Amino acid sequence: MSYSAPVKDMLFAINELAGIDRVSALPGFEDATVETAQAVLEEAARFNEDVLAPLNFEGDRNPSSWKDGVVTATPGFKEAFQQFAEGGWQGVVHPTEYGGQGLPKLLATPCIEMLNAANLSLALCPLLTDGAIEALLTAGSEEQKQRYVPKLISGEWTGTMNLTEPQAGSDLALVRTRAEPQGDGTYRIFGTKIFITWGEHDMAENIVHLVLARLPDAPEGVRGISLFIVPKFMINDDGTLGARNDVHCVSIEHKLGIKASPTAVLQFGDHGGAIGYLIGEANRGLEYMFIMMNAARFGVGVQGIAVADRAYQKAVAYAKDRVQSRPVDGSAKQSVAIIQHPDVRRMLATMRALTEGARALAYVAAAHSDIAHRHADEAVRADHQAIYEYLVPIVKGWSTELSIDVASLGVQVHGGMGFIEETGAAQYYRDARILTIYEGTTAIQANDLVGRKTLRDGGAVAKVLIEQIDETLAALWEHTSYESSPAFQVLYRNLRATRMALANVVDFVLARAQQEPNVVFAGSVSYLKLAGIVLAGWQFARALLVATEKRSDDPSFYDAKIATAHCFATQVLPQALAFEAAIVGAQDDVGVLALTEDQF
Amino acid sequence: MSYSAPVKDMLFAINELAGIDRVSALPGFEDATVETAQAVLEEAARFNEDVLAPLNFEGDRNPSSWKDGVVTATPGFKEAFQQFAEGGWQGVVHPTEYGGQGLPKLLATPCIEMLNAANLSLALCPLLTDGAIEALLTAGSEEQKQRYVPKLISGEWTGTMNLTEPQAGSDLALVRTRAEPQGDGTYRIFGTKIFITWGEHDMAENIVHLVLARLPDAPEGVRGISLFIVPKFMINDDGTLGARNDVHCVSIEHKLGIKASPTAVLQFGDHGGAIGYLIGEANRGLEYMFIMMNAARFGVGVQGIAVADRAYQKAVAYAKDRVQSRPVDGSAKQSVAIIQHPDVRRMLATMRALTEGARALAYVAAAHSDIAHRHADEAVRADHQAIYEYLVPIVKGWSTELSIDVASLGVQVHGGMGFIEETGAAQYYRDARILTIYEGTTAIQANDLVGRKTLRDGGAVAKVLIEQIDETLAALWEHTSYESSPAFQVLYRNLRATRMALANVVDFVLARAQQEPNVVFAGSVSYLKLAGIVLAGWQFARALLVATEKRSDDPSFYDAKIATAHCFATQVLPQALAFEAAIVGAQDDVGVLALTEDQF
Repeated sequence: MSYSAPVKDMLFAINELAGIDRVSALPGFEDATVETAQAVLEEAARFNEDVLAPLNFEGDRNPSSWKDGVVTATPGFKEAFQQFAEGGWQGVVHPTEYGGQGLPKLLATPCIEMLNAANLSLALCPLLTDGAIEALLTAGSEEQKQRYVPKLISGEWTGTMNLTEPQAGSDLALVRTRAEPQGDGTYRIFGTKIFITWGEHDMAENIVHLVLARLPDAPEGVRGISLFIVPKFMINDDGTLGARNDVHCVSIEHKLGIKASPTAVLQFGDHGGAIGYLIGEANRGLEYMFIMMNAARFGVGVQGIAVADRAYQKAVAYAKDRVQSRPVDGSAKQSVAIIQHPDVRRMLATMRALTEGARALAYVAAAHSDIAHRHADEAVRADHQAIYEYLVPIVKGWSTELSIDVASLGVQVHGGMGFIEETGAAQYYRDARILTIYEGTTAIQANDLVGRKTLRDGGAVAKVLIEQIDETLAALWEHTSYESSPAFQVLYRNLRATRMALANVVDFVLARAQQEPNVVFAGSVSYLKLAGIVLAGWQFARALLVATEKRSDDPSFYDAKIATAHCFATQVLPQALAFEAAIVGAQDDVGVLALTEDQF
Repeated sequence: MSYSAPVKDMLFAINELAGIDRVSALPGFEDATVETAQAVLEEAARFNEDVLAPLNFEGDRNPSSWKDGVVTATPGFKEAFQQFAEGGWQGVVHPTEYGGQGLPKLLATPCIEMLNAANLSLALCPLLTDGAIEALLTAGSEEQKQRYVPKLISGEWTGTMNLTEPQAGSDLALVRTRAEPQGDGTYRIFGTKIFITWGEHDMAENIVHLVLARLPDAPEGVRGISLFIVPKFMINDDGTLGARNDVHCVSIEHKLGIKASPTAVLQFGDHGGAIGYLIGEANRGLEYMFIMMNAARFGVGVQGIAVADRAYQKAVAYAKDRVQSRPVDGSAKQSVAIIQHPDVRRMLATMRALTEGARALAYVAAAHSDIAHRHADEAVRADHQAIYEYLVPIVKGWSTELSIDVASLGVQVHGGMGFIEETGAAQYYRDARILTIYEGTTAIQANDLVGRKTLRDGGAVAKVLIEQIDETLAALWEHTSYESSPAFQVLYRNLRATRMALANVVDFVLARAQQEPNVVFAGSVSYLKLAGIVLAGWQFARALLVATEKRSDDPSFYDAKIATAHCFATQVLPQALAFEAAIVGAQDDVGVLALTEDQF
């Protein structure tokens, strides 16, 4: 059940692919050097491996429990979370003026990956708190920031995100929770929110709920939603905790996975109204919530990488240990460790290739975000922000979709033992299943990719990325032409073919969206997966160039990287062409859309 | 949670694709007409929908339980199983002389599909009993047949299959359970067997365990394994039950899914030895067990289709009911049922296409089995047996792999509700996960496909099937040339391309297996999936021809079939090319196999 943080691969992605030099050249990030990165990652690895990882299985067996409105976390979680808080891990990415460490997202991302790999359920609490902090920093008043942010960063309090209602899942236009002004600047909140992650628990002394609700005079739909702070305990003027607010957890869900993370139904205002404070301007709640959601979406993508890596590590350990059957090539007369069987090797190599590819892409995205925030030149900031925003739905959607496949392969490597809960492999298969759903389903990410990220700029960002792929292809070509390495050849050939597919699909989306929106959106998830595969394949191509150049420094690491790149090229990249066919092949407006509602 | 048996699609596959006329022309199957098929399927549908389907969710919530060696099935299961037995459903395919109905496999297969869709956990008990009956009929003495088979067919007793031991999963060479001859023709059995499905329960009055064990003088490895009957209760000469035998259930597993089905650890001989009876000849146990396994493998493939269909039906019902968000094409100003959203439509259509494709292929395989058993001409029997044997690992491997994908899409259609256990969608995702593992993992099926089914006959059967695909392509071409139906065009184009891929891969396997077995076996699962996709695509091409010809008889059904075929052609068929690339692209012996054990 142990976890070993892949610090070496993380540093490779940070230093060589995301380019930490570009980040440490930014104002305020001067200290974020290669050495800092290594020190932070090693410290994070120690904490997550030693403290949080051992609690992961226990959380599944002995989930958070509800009794009379009180939620008690899995034994050990409260203490572990306190260690997390005391270690300053909540504040890695947040501003120093509120007690954070002010590190770039590029360094926070591996910390978040380790945290989630170690303990996905527990990690959700800081993930939501991060979102609350971001929203407060962006839209809160100075007084609100001073009051809430330091306590959230210190881990004394935690944050939540209250969007969903029974009748309104992804469709926030249907939100009914209402906020009544009290005339003193405060509001009373009435309504029911569901699926509130860590919406009630005993790990911290207070919980800061950020709640979407409607003012009495608000317009209908999403333009009539405002965002409110609703603390579990009121805060006295001296900062101490006051009376219990009128928000109560009436039940928690019985879920397929992430069982240690309580998913609360919260009732606001059953006893006179929960006192709330408006954040920012009225009716701009959705906009503020999107700040939280965009940060959280990227974070959920990293969760996918995290659970994939944990499942991979567990499968590798089992495959090295489990002895079964003689090798097909006759190289031994006895049964051998199953890692020697070609199909087990294929499964493990595919799991690894998908995980490393998704990691590389996410870390590259994080660097774009850092540059978008801090670069001195506004035009440069805008360019990087656009790339980051294009990548967010891909990091979220693709990394989480593949995490399910990887976790499922992990079960398969274990054979019959994988189906027995005591083994632990099944937990990742169950836990991963939420990741393509919460913070926006894959379809919602794909709609974002098509609508806001491709159509709105006429495919400009997509084309910038395709040009950058072409530069890498040109560099690969130089190697391919004089060197006959099979990894180079197959990666060059398959990346070139799939880069064409990506370009074709972008053109298809641009050409057809106006006239045939249903056809384009029927292909949106395929477009998202295609983009994820091609962009990760591109990172492997870049990695291959670095690994070839630096091979003699560390042959074992770089040879493994080259082999993993080759595996990605043969086992994963060709799937992009199938996605292209699924999108473009549907252009006659039949097939997926021909079946009428009644025919189903 | 309800289930509606897809009788119409089943009859289409039976009548039009598998060709019931060919089966009712066989000696002894004269009564197996179109009318009989309809009557049997409608009766089976009523029973499974009304009696077994409603217990499926309860079985998950309230699994079989163990106490002091006694296993009690989920409340309601015992009574339901008795109704199953009294209805004669255990005997559908078995000989009339032992109390069976003697129907062809082509009609038994839809009955098995319904049974498993209605209640996968309960269905495992009759599935294992079927295997025991087959083994006894093939290898048992006349006295053994008379003693056990009628009671198994009547459902008074049930059967089990005891292969696995803690140190021996798929590797039966490692079996250690021993059988000591007692000098009176009986044996005493000592050992531990694990993962014994329905190895102990209270649904029937006796359990007939078929157990692999070694005689004292047996050779090492798989050629030293014999097969024994070990009844839970001894049988007196008058057929009544006697003393309790020395086989005891010491625990049952805590599993990811199929929770109502008890998975037993059985201890043989802790109190002096379990009395056993040798079946057939000594040291031929593995051969006899393969009779059970081959029947069971096909049955597990049908389980995949069953759970996929159940997951599909549930997702369709939810998608028609759940109202959320406005349509992307602006066709409504209010939120609409989510089935109107293109990506939900894509998911549902893909689930349906995979399920119907797998069903068609399995039913076609069943007809080959019937002809192989009953045709008057020995050469015809041999031809059909060879095709059936080629198809078994594909039906088992591909149908179960896709069942996981379909069940996962089913969860996705439900959004957040899919992750809540009360919804029921998650159960299919958990239940399906065993199907690619038990009765031989997908890798084991794929090794069988490569080794016994492709290399052994030099690809002869594969080439026969490819020729038959070409005949269908020629028939499609006639339509494509004068008719511009997009379904015809895309199916023709993609089936032709993927048929080439299948032929290439067969040639690759034949050319490389001797010199580079690891490379070939690293591609074996990809070959299996490719073959499944192409052969199912072929069935859709045949279905398209029938549907076009008969359209006016039932436009709603046939139009839906045409649309589903089109969906399969665009969404599924192109994946075969990615599998081809994964197999052939690995020919340089790096990529999937380049990573050394230490590099993982």
